[in-house]
Amino acid sequence: MSSAVVNLVCRECGRTYPISPTHVCEFCFGPLEVAYDYEQIAARVTRERIQSGPPTLWRYGELLPIERDEARIDLGAGFTPLVPAPRLAAELGLGELYLKNDTVNPTGSFKDRVVAVALSKAREFGMRVASCASTGNLANSVAAHAARAGMEAYVFIPANLERVKVLATAVYGANIVAIDGTYDDVNRLCAEIVSERGDWGFANVNLRPFYSEGSKTLGFEVVEQLGWRYPDHVVVPVASGSQLTRIHRGFEELALAGLMPEPPSVRVSGAQAQGCSPVAQAFEAGRSLVRPVRPSTVAKSLAIGNPADGSYAVDVARATGGAIGAVSDDEILEAIALVARTEGIFVETAGGVTVATLAKLASQGIVRPDETVVAYLSGNGLKTVEAIEQTVDTGTVIRPSIDAFWSLLGAQAR
Amino acid sequence: MSSAVVNLVCRECGRTYPISPTHVCEFCFGPLEVAYDYEQIAARVTRERIQSGPPTLWRYGELLPIERDEARIDLGAGFTPLVPAPRLAAELGLGELYLKNDTVNPTGSFKDRVVAVALSKAREFGMRVASCASTGNLANSVAAHAARAGMEAYVFIPANLERVKVLATAVYGANIVAIDGTYDDVNRLCAEIVSERGDWGFANVNLRPFYSEGSKTLGFEVVEQLGWRYPDHVVVPVASGSQLTRIHRGFEELALAGLMPEPPSVRVSGAQAQGCSPVAQAFEAGRSLVRPVRPSTVAKSLAIGNPADGSYAVDVARATGGAIGAVSDDEILEAIALVARTEGIFVETAGGVTVATLAKLASQGIVRPDETVVAYLSGNGLKTVEAIEQTVDTGTVIRPSIDAFWSLLGAQAR
Repeated sequence: MSSAVVNLVCRECGRTYPISPTHVCEFCFGPLEVAYDYEQIAARVTRERIQSGPPTLWRYGELLPIERDEARIDLGAGFTPLVPAPRLAAELGLGELYLKNDTVNPTGSFKDRVVAVALSKAREFGMRVASCASTGNLANSVAAHAARAGMEAYVFIPANLERVKVLATAVYGANIVAIDGTYDDVNRLCAEIVSERGDWGFANVNLRPFYSEGSKTLGFEVVEQLGWRYPDHVVVPVASGSQLTRIHRGFEELALAGLMPEPPSVRVSGAQAQGCSPVAQAFEAGRSLVRPVRPSTVAKSLAIGNPADGSYAVDVARATGGAIGAVSDDEILEAIALVARTEGIFVETAGGVTVATLAKLASQGIVRPDETVVAYLSGNGLKTVEAIEQTVDTGTVIRPSIDAFWSLLGAQAR
Repeated sequence: MSSAVVNLVCRECGRTYPISPTHVCEFCFGPLEVAYDYEQIAARVTRERIQSGPPTLWRYGELLPIERDEARIDLGAGFTPLVPAPRLAAELGLGELYLKNDTVNPTGSFKDRVVAVALSKAREFGMRVASCASTGNLANSVAAHAARAGMEAYVFIPANLERVKVLATAVYGANIVAIDGTYDDVNRLCAEIVSERGDWGFANVNLRPFYSEGSKTLGFEVVEQLGWRYPDHVVVPVASGSQLTRIHRGFEELALAGLMPEPPSVRVSGAQAQGCSPVAQAFEAGRSLVRPVRPSTVAKSLAIGNPADGSYAVDVARATGGAIGAVSDDEILEAIALVARTEGIFVETAGGVTVATLAKLASQGIVRPDETVVAYLSGNGLKTVEAIEQTVDTGTVIRPSIDAFWSLLGAQAR
């Protein structure tokens, strides 16, 4: 098929670049983004065609930057359930609430979306090594997708990461390089390495323009799953800010591609942990400039102190009438239990950030009961199980006798 | 809609019982099963209708024993990816190999299938308490589905369970009763309790006839995902034996319901850990009678020493030309790493049992390279992450400097 992918464009100055593994404008240092020919897409893509596609993000292949179908790496990422959440809505005083359950992706987080796209593109570029700077979920996903594609993997992580995320990377045979420092130190090091090893595909560095595109599918799917209807308000976790801005872009592209008759008017809100809330702070202060912070929060997967797309996230929230909130570690842990006991979904700490922020914005009247609301649950609770060790009741040990059980039940009833 | 569910029938003596929460024949103590009116189903169900249904097990609602759609509990269980596995096939000397990836169910295991059906039926019976005897995965799933349905949950587990599985049950607010004993002790206790508390819905005790039906969807989906084609050979993990027998039944029902023109001729093989292999031992000895054992294996989710459907599993394997194999704990751990590094899927110990047994049966020429083979991966590796702690390489810690990285890489190259 002829591809609708045109080139890379600098988000700041508009300079164009050919499609290649590069991510920063040489002139203004702005981030590069993929540009498409939407007329060509609109001539080809229909709702029916999407609906008869695979139950993965590849159903939206026409709106993604992979030019040859055979380059696609398919572990089954995407097209995750959009779950109605009436019991959680009742607790929060909301009306029509849905949870986008990205905990059931192949490696348990939304990162499978961005990695599927980034590493497929790496394959198209003929790269043999997959790499990334990661707070954990990205490492899991790069390792898994690289294994599936038969690529070698080098993943760079902060040394203090949750043990589960390290083991769930190592099992795929990836080479793990643990850095004695923060995520931001890891990220800087990877930027240095890529300047010398441009033949390595760093998902979120030299492949970043393609990587980011994967998150658009979180916007596409929600609209399709609502019966080709935009939600009124979405709440998205913010680490680098890329997920939030790309979900918004996904909504816009559905109109550009002729799949929706009108442009969206979706309010886009963001969620951060108070222990790492540079984007929420900028929003609160009424500025776009995001001042870096040193993270300290239980939500390690969101602990990016110097977020690449932070100021764009602020702009999107402001332009759409959303907000960016921040919540404490205690609120995060309470929210994990809340969404588990009301809706049966076990989220990692980042999901706790999203649900706690949703609760806060609802109590402030910013998320409203007359809105169709979608909260994005980006990762699986099994990955940060240690975080809830102190907050849940793991029960009582008894002898295997019915008398022992009735005694226990009687004691509970009293 | 009028339901095609007829009654319960004793598998041994054929006596019938009305649809109710009961599971054992009063006369011969045989297990009860759900009987359907297949003519009524065939008149109603078509491939097209199934294909336009939801991307969950409820797309097969007509072939499940829930009579009112509004009783369905929907967390998104089922319709998991069927993943081609060419790299694993090459390592094992096989041809067309697929992995049925049930690790991405809502709570990370195939138990979400059986629980979705059992607890929906409990709702239909007007029950308010959901319960089970569990080796862990079932506990996770009962707790999650009960939370979603607003039911109270009591789950019974052996006290020595993996910590992750305990926490991933507790988070949903379930009451956990840990028994100082084996799973078989837990199971006996639950049978006693249910005789006094018939108003509690024990997924795998008094709801067992309905619960088992959920596993049929593992057969249905594979045939649909292969383009309405039966596989030649399937390899299924064996704990109680119910999953294996019901997958086989699922293949048969597709023909009974007119969805497939011919009855299946699928070879059905089973997989056990040598530390708990009563079914494999019976198969090996050429008998149907399964002699209970005391389990001791890293694959705790399969550690049922006295399996309820063990002899039926032996019969199915024998009748279809399959086999039931058993593998050591070391082989299990190696197989976890093998499927992760070749296909990018991280399975729990039960998945290691399946892949290791597949490898063994392939090397023995029992699973053949000219067959279309499906291996069922029943649970997520994040749940038994501690099992791989000693077998994977979690890398090296370095300073955040490019020189430190080049030194590391140079050292690895040497």
